[in-house]
Amino acid sequence: MNELIIPVDAKAGTPLYQQICEYFKQEIQEGRLTAGMRLPSSRALAASLSVSRSTVDLSYGQLVSEGYIESIPCKGYYVCQIEGIYFPVQEKERKAEPEKRDFQGKERYRYDFAMNGIAPDSFPHNTWKKLSKQVLSHTGEELFNLGNPYGEISLRKAIAEYLYQARGVHCTPEQILVGAGNDYLLMLLCTILGKNKKVAMENPTYESAWYDFRHMGYTMCTVGQDDQGILVEDLEKTKAEVVYVMPSHQFPMGTVMPLKRRMELLCWASSSGSYIVEDDYDSEFRYRGKPIPALQGFDQADCVIYMGTFSKSIAPSIRISYMVLPKRLMERYQKAGHPFSVTVSKVDQKIVELFLKDGHYERHLNRMRSLYKSKHDRILKWLKEDMGRVCTYSGENAGIHLLIHFRNGLSEQEAVKRAKEVGIRVYGLSEFMVNGQVPPEEATILLGYATLDEKDLQQALQCLEEIWT
Amino acid sequence: MNELIIPVDAKAGTPLYQQICEYFKQEIQEGRLTAGMRLPSSRALAASLSVSRSTVDLSYGQLVSEGYIESIPCKGYYVCQIEGIYFPVQEKERKAEPEKRDFQGKERYRYDFAMNGIAPDSFPHNTWKKLSKQVLSHTGEELFNLGNPYGEISLRKAIAEYLYQARGVHCTPEQILVGAGNDYLLMLLCTILGKNKKVAMENPTYESAWYDFRHMGYTMCTVGQDDQGILVEDLEKTKAEVVYVMPSHQFPMGTVMPLKRRMELLCWASSSGSYIVEDDYDSEFRYRGKPIPALQGFDQADCVIYMGTFSKSIAPSIRISYMVLPKRLMERYQKAGHPFSVTVSKVDQKIVELFLKDGHYERHLNRMRSLYKSKHDRILKWLKEDMGRVCTYSGENAGIHLLIHFRNGLSEQEAVKRAKEVGIRVYGLSEFMVNGQVPPEEATILLGYATLDEKDLQQALQCLEEIWT
Repeated sequence: MNELIIPVDAKAGTPLYQQICEYFKQEIQEGRLTAGMRLPSSRALAASLSVSRSTVDLSYGQLVSEGYIESIPCKGYYVCQIEGIYFPVQEKERKAEPEKRDFQGKERYRYDFAMNGIAPDSFPHNTWKKLSKQVLSHTGEELFNLGNPYGEISLRKAIAEYLYQARGVHCTPEQILVGAGNDYLLMLLCTILGKNKKVAMENPTYESAWYDFRHMGYTMCTVGQDDQGILVEDLEKTKAEVVYVMPSHQFPMGTVMPLKRRMELLCWASSSGSYIVEDDYDSEFRYRGKPIPALQGFDQADCVIYMGTFSKSIAPSIRISYMVLPKRLMERYQKAGHPFSVTVSKVDQKIVELFLKDGHYERHLNRMRSLYKSKHDRILKWLKEDMGRVCTYSGENAGIHLLIHFRNGLSEQEAVKRAKEVGIRVYGLSEFMVNGQVPPEEATILLGYATLDEKDLQQALQCLEEIWT
Repeated sequence: MNELIIPVDAKAGTPLYQQICEYFKQEIQEGRLTAGMRLPSSRALAASLSVSRSTVDLSYGQLVSEGYIESIPCKGYYVCQIEGIYFPVQEKERKAEPEKRDFQGKERYRYDFAMNGIAPDSFPHNTWKKLSKQVLSHTGEELFNLGNPYGEISLRKAIAEYLYQARGVHCTPEQILVGAGNDYLLMLLCTILGKNKKVAMENPTYESAWYDFRHMGYTMCTVGQDDQGILVEDLEKTKAEVVYVMPSHQFPMGTVMPLKRRMELLCWASSSGSYIVEDDYDSEFRYRGKPIPALQGFDQADCVIYMGTFSKSIAPSIRISYMVLPKRLMERYQKAGHPFSVTVSKVDQKIVELFLKDGHYERHLNRMRSLYKSKHDRILKWLKEDMGRVCTYSGENAGIHLLIHFRNGLSEQEAVKRAKEVGIRVYGLSEFMVNGQVPPEEATILLGYATLDEKDLQQALQCLEEIWT
């Protein structure tokens, strides 16, 4: 092989050593150089190509590293025996297929009464930018090291303080786990609770949580609810080890669980040794009176797992939620060792911490509340004055959606269909039913009002009135 | 109860309606008002307190919402029957216990040869700040809505492009899942693969992954390795359904798996219908020749799960990793429906996308590589010139750590202990052994050099020479 001519070009974009590598790789891949063949010595090859010997050494080193050739001491370089070698075709379908719809297959609507967004322009842009700049100005390595797996303690202190004052939650910062969204926290919770548990949920319910538990391999069951929330007697019969509830504002029914039912639920948990997951997702928004304290604050048996999020109050895209574990569960997680790394960046944790501490959050919530209350009142007025003949409503005074119950024989399906025909997306109650069950016969439609601005809301309501009455 | 006197004070910080609420709550909690007792009419109470009637209505409404009283139409308000009522003690242990050590119980050292950080001041501060400002300047609602559960498609396109060019990975953007760190992605992977799988890993290995699988309830086993990587014959015997390897640079051994072994491994996976998890955690750092292409690029049987991260190349604290799924697994995940929400904020996804697209990442990697190469060469020189008598070394030319093998009878334990006595943290190989196994008798110490600056490195090496020779 001493007469080997390799087409190297010192002026080409790729370095010489790489050109040599590529040449040999191709020869081997295409079968012209086969296992056991000896390559020219680096001295000879360097001379024949008029390149430096170190260039050839570098090429050979790379080929050895990648396993194409091997070096036999005092003998030279030989092509390796490689079974089943096959090589990827270059440029193999790298292009993404075009996105015809959004990722959920959603079509675009003129007006969308969605329940999972925030008011347009309500994100606290200026504050966030200012805090972000402030945080990123710290150049200390602390900001870039892997952080506390449970979340930075300073953020957890700020959350504990907020939860105590605003929600009546009683916990130490050490009971808090910070995570990137509720789905993630539920996943994490399942690993702490252990395999194969049975979880009870109301129906209709927050379906994401239902599917999170299912994906984690848990057994699921549904329990009835009335206008005070989950039916504890029914719950007892299921023998569930965990129940998932939203006492401040059940999604999607909008029910507020009164104290009596809460006490019954706590009593069930403590006597059966079960856990209650309290999802307090939108308790910040209440338009009459002050927010109702969390169930967790009444828990004496260390059995409530409290979940909160900044998705509803700041923005869904920032991916910061938290979970307050009962002490015994936190201890179990700590004792198991090797916790999962935190899922929220340190920069974001610091921004939220400052947002909470410096009073920005409180001011922001007040602004949001007044924004939402105005829209809430607008819909309520419409329901009373313009729609009173055909429907009743429920779930008012809290959250960011209302429920309409038709009394004029209009079916849910028909109501949704008619709205769609005029470019309006409304949500039928059956969309939130799990376990293959169907909702009660009465047609119920949900109207979320967070993401529509006042003008659009006004127009959408007018349209709906025309097509529904 | 008409003569009721409530000590309300219009000048106090809390609103009047709230003072009224608090009064009634206390009366009920402490048993002075009991179930079934009727409250004064709002008209009468307003008159007796000289407050407006709407203030009293607001108080009563709140008490009803919270379940303390109930309204009986045409009769009035009555105290509810509440079983087992007990109330949280105010100010109950809210203070965090002081942090004596860091969260991992780590003590502070003068010099730490850690393997999980980045070079001080190497974080691309200015670019990051600039991009962050740029991203946050977009006020469109798109930035704040809940995003694509798999990760934004524009970021996934940028990653696919980068992986193809830099790592020889062949995938469409649709095969990529973006997530907040490897622990999270492994958790997610387990939910896609299904329950109760058997996973094989080398030993010593990347222990976080070992514990992630264990926390997910998987059965674990270890397989031998030699200087070419995992022993495929051993692997066959385990009947594992998944194997976790780091072919570009095994952690902690620093082994590079040659092509022949890679092909054997692929052959095992395709013939046994198993999956290979290829963790390509630090392949960006290679100081001789160019990076070795990923195993995934040779996979024809759709059986390699490729994992990459920006933790090593940008910073551990930013929490952005990604996983390329075989098409059949991605289809399975999509078909199951209701995917877990994404765990990385949209802002961070956009920043990383711009970082990749605008060539910042390439420039940043070049800078990091030269920084690490200089420290790598410094240690290598020390090992050859000053330590040659007492030890050999391995794992050079790649990554951010080297392995030292003592030949002078010094035990691992003794080497670590002596270093600790002079304030230096070095890592014994046994720290990375899983499954209760012990490392081979030869004492092996790992030195990570990413986080030490050149001056500290120089001093630490001098110290180590004194105590180890």
